[in-house]
Amino acid sequence: MSLLADTARRLDGLGFSAPAVVVDERRARANIAAMAAKAAVSGVRLRPHFKTHDNVGVGRWFREAGVRHATVSSLAMAERFARDGWRDLTLAILVNPRELPRLADLAWRLADRGGALGLTVDTPEAARAVRHLTGDTSPLWLKVDTGHGRSGVRWDDPTRLLAVARSASFAGLLTHAGHSYRAPRDELPALFAETVRRLAAAREATGRDLQLSLGDTPTCTAVESFAGVNEVRPGNFVFFDLMQRAAGVCGDDRLAAALVCPVIGTDPSRGRLVLHGGAVHLSRESLATPAGPVFGCLGALAPGGFGPVLDAAAVTGMSQEHGIVSLEPDRWAELADGLNPGDLVLVHPVHACLTCNLQGTSMRTLTGAMLPRDVEAEAV
Amino acid sequence: MSLLADTARRLDGLGFSAPAVVVDERRARANIAAMAAKAAVSGVRLRPHFKTHDNVGVGRWFREAGVRHATVSSLAMAERFARDGWRDLTLAILVNPRELPRLADLAWRLADRGGALGLTVDTPEAARAVRHLTGDTSPLWLKVDTGHGRSGVRWDDPTRLLAVARSASFAGLLTHAGHSYRAPRDELPALFAETVRRLAAAREATGRDLQLSLGDTPTCTAVESFAGVNEVRPGNFVFFDLMQRAAGVCGDDRLAAALVCPVIGTDPSRGRLVLHGGAVHLSRESLATPAGPVFGCLGALAPGGFGPVLDAAAVTGMSQEHGIVSLEPDRWAELADGLNPGDLVLVHPVHACLTCNLQGTSMRTLTGAMLPRDVEAEAV
Repeated sequence: MSLLADTARRLDGLGFSAPAVVVDERRARANIAAMAAKAAVSGVRLRPHFKTHDNVGVGRWFREAGVRHATVSSLAMAERFARDGWRDLTLAILVNPRELPRLADLAWRLADRGGALGLTVDTPEAARAVRHLTGDTSPLWLKVDTGHGRSGVRWDDPTRLLAVARSASFAGLLTHAGHSYRAPRDELPALFAETVRRLAAAREATGRDLQLSLGDTPTCTAVESFAGVNEVRPGNFVFFDLMQRAAGVCGDDRLAAALVCPVIGTDPSRGRLVLHGGAVHLSRESLATPAGPVFGCLGALAPGGFGPVLDAAAVTGMSQEHGIVSLEPDRWAELADGLNPGDLVLVHPVHACLTCNLQGTSMRTLTGAMLPRDVEAEAV
Repeated sequence: MSLLADTARRLDGLGFSAPAVVVDERRARANIAAMAAKAAVSGVRLRPHFKTHDNVGVGRWFREAGVRHATVSSLAMAERFARDGWRDLTLAILVNPRELPRLADLAWRLADRGGALGLTVDTPEAARAVRHLTGDTSPLWLKVDTGHGRSGVRWDDPTRLLAVARSASFAGLLTHAGHSYRAPRDELPALFAETVRRLAAAREATGRDLQLSLGDTPTCTAVESFAGVNEVRPGNFVFFDLMQRAAGVCGDDRLAAALVCPVIGTDPSRGRLVLHGGAVHLSRESLATPAGPVFGCLGALAPGGFGPVLDAAAVTGMSQEHGIVSLEPDRWAELADGLNPGDLVLVHPVHACLTCNLQGTSMRTLTGAMLPRDVEAEAV
């Protein structure tokens, strides 16, 4: 039996009829355990970014691994995880003044439960506005730009760093070295070290004993230890994806989330499959290859979980609801023989965070267990 | 007052605090009226594709313009519009065998109300499976590939066309000339004519008196008349977007949907704004420009609706929740002076269909009216 026909047979009993995200629980838990162990050995707090999964079911796997702190990127996400009992959250995006009243409300509720909502600012005005509404309940993080160039005070602008740090009481300095996503694999440890050095220089400029927090999956995965900081906030590592695989950050055996798609057309003469599964399911994120953009790769399903990624079966075309898989023509028999419309395939996403976000609702494990995005009842 | 500060002032009273899609109702209704008038003059049925808005509120504007037929791209979308009273729908994606029982159920319900659910196939097996479950209630459309290369029987494969057409009773031949999205503006009328010619050749091959249906916004907007076909199915034209504008298909004055985003950071020294509004709001769709990819452009708000697009204020960076707007530095005073965190901006999307899909919930008009995505009660 061909690889894809075999995978279709294994997926058949899971009850999928439309595109849906499926998670290899064993791999995701192993990814969590590895990062948690590294943080523990380093004596550093792990505050994983939950924007990748944004799912309270997956959040519980973190809790079962001993994680008690989390990072979120929106007010809605903060409220969702607070409802599921998370008490110590940091909102790592700059505070939106229009949401400050609701943020303050959540900060007070978490403080009442012995927790806290950390908030992020990069101006004295925002720092004072937060303090005005939250009193001393919210740990304030000063966003530092250590080279990514997205937001925050530049690490090498001591005057500005001092001015912001003086405007209110701060818990620490926070950065996201997002430029690591474009860095070569062998430069990632040096990039981590340089980010720590820049954060430390920024702390020096403030003249205060502030904590240091950084977080990005490439450098946090590449280094052996998190020495030099108080907290790390990687997120993507729970599932990884083809982008991390292409960058050499992870191997096939750490990819833990994929999109199940029904085949709706087959064309052996052109070596292609048509999938129900397009930009509204996978996202438009692509990998550049010599043959053009790739939006995903099919994967095999092995007895215990996801099998190898099939680079010879890439999603090379995409519209809103359609994906086009191009198979190397001389490998059709080996890969796709016997595959018919209605059969299911696994598509590994280029960017797991966006694919999971598009799911919008619950995800499922490979054993069919539901992973709820939200809880029904208000827990806070 | 700078242009963006003026727009922020106008947006201030609309009640937005987080990224949300806002529609210029006057423009959207004008876009609908123009396409409906062209179809009427041509004596051709307009069956607009509702995947662009996927919103029953916007669907009602079509109904008020006399439109009674619509195209959808998923079962969920078909069920949504059926709930709002639409009785004549075509699902323009190849039938997913796993969804056939639910599709047949909907087809029978629509037939009971004097309507129909058209279904699309490109194999004898799928045609027979549909007929097996829907009897004669579902108009069957044979998907023809007229050059897009996505799915369907090739227009120049008469043997295959005949084999499929013989397998069941068909209503017509259906194509999507998606390659028009990459065609130069001045070639669009010729591309429309060539698509009609290919569809007619395919009909000739079937030896049957079948209807012809095509649909894509670029050619349907560019031509003066729809002569030669029975039905047109454009979708994007209701809102248009920066992709259509860049292709010369529409002017600024037809762009009818934009994302309202809160500013969360300003940096005049680098000529940039940081927005809450990223890939999970706009999508990763981009326009290639000499200066790099552009993910959106800010727009002004004029007294009666959207104002001009500000090419000098483009979204040049994007992550999951952040957008970075780069302003031409010497135009900061004119464009952005007085703009502060918490102020709102309008971002015109590159691809309106994906941005609206990411909204997931209701949209609003510029007068604050809610446009519900779905209806509460089951109308079918």
